[in-house]
Amino acid sequence: MKLYDCTTAPSPRRVRIFLAEKGIVVPTVQVDLRNNEQLTPAFRAINPDATVPSLELDDGTRINDAIGICIYFEAIKPQPPLMGETPQEKALIVSWQREAERNGFYAVMEAFRNWARGLKGRALPGPYDYEQIPALAERGRLRIGHFFEQMNARLAQSEYVAGPRFSIADITTLVTIDFAASAKASMPETSTHLRRWHAQVSARPSAKA
Amino acid sequence: MKLYDCTTAPSPRRVRIFLAEKGIVVPTVQVDLRNNEQLTPAFRAINPDATVPSLELDDGTRINDAIGICIYFEAIKPQPPLMGETPQEKALIVSWQREAERNGFYAVMEAFRNWARGLKGRALPGPYDYEQIPALAERGRLRIGHFFEQMNARLAQSEYVAGPRFSIADITTLVTIDFAASAKASMPETSTHLRRWHAQVSARPSAKA
Repeated sequence: MKLYDCTTAPSPRRVRIFLAEKGIVVPTVQVDLRNNEQLTPAFRAINPDATVPSLELDDGTRINDAIGICIYFEAIKPQPPLMGETPQEKALIVSWQREAERNGFYAVMEAFRNWARGLKGRALPGPYDYEQIPALAERGRLRIGHFFEQMNARLAQSEYVAGPRFSIADITTLVTIDFAASAKASMPETSTHLRRWHAQVSARPSAKA
Repeated sequence: MKLYDCTTAPSPRRVRIFLAEKGIVVPTVQVDLRNNEQLTPAFRAINPDATVPSLELDDGTRINDAIGICIYFEAIKPQPPLMGETPQEKALIVSWQREAERNGFYAVMEAFRNWARGLKGRALPGPYDYEQIPALAERGRLRIGHFFEQMNARLAQSEYVAGPRFSIADITTLVTIDFAASAKASMPETSTHLRRWHAQVSARPSAKA
């Protein structure tokens, strides 16, 4: 088994944190995104979607999606559960994971990829080139602001994003917030609940992954 | 239990098809999206994200995401499996579901919501108003074209989107393609594999849901 990874990229960090929480070690192969290694024919033969992470199983099967990879590891090593145990808990965790991804992770990606000089002509990950849209970078920044408000309100009511237990929804939210900071969008001082939660999850050993 | 639904909207259609495949009947409450009922204080007290579908359980818990709702029903009624049974199958199905959603469903949403006259100022679903970005409508249409190519290539190799069995990945892809057609983006004549698959899944009784 091996994990195609890039230590500076947010998507594979979700998997790295997940694995650290599970206590699973997987050999990694670093893919040099800065030099567009993901777009080479060699890498596109591995993942036609030209993205990391990708997990290669021993039988050659490849799982080309961060959440797909987490589902695989949750199934083979259910403890500690990061995706819920009861039907209701599973449903709520995936719903919050997706909400954080849709309203947060994708908003940061929108803001960052439509603005960064190094990503001209590469406004979306994947095999196709799309021009940057400056209005989309601006909209992304507005959305990040709303995401901070939304998560602050949620974390005023709940210890973790999806309820009383740490879960994959916390992983997506943590990676999103740290990714936003790298795009110069930081949690407002007034988001005290979000900041309380961020300090708490950042103190877990897995956050270093 | 009740499902907040809107018969003309693509997101809740995913849940309706899923339920039809499982043979589960849930009472529905129609939410009038055309008249922005989802933005009323009454509905936002039900789902602060101001979207449908939302599933209300008998204990009052609400699951506010289409895939979250499907996970709930898969957990309480595993047969027929629509999200995989082995760890590998589960991982591949969710990866394809997400790929269809990211590259297809969101692209159609981008094309449609940034173009439709009735959605001025409402370029994203949810509680916040965002102006339409014409360049994003255009990019969405380009992406839909790429999605058709990608899925045609996939379905040249595979009977269903995620492998040999019908799954939630087919549901997302079917809803995406029918939603694209309503936004005047139809499968090219040359996408013969995609068309073969579309005819096949459209003939299932669940497709009427």
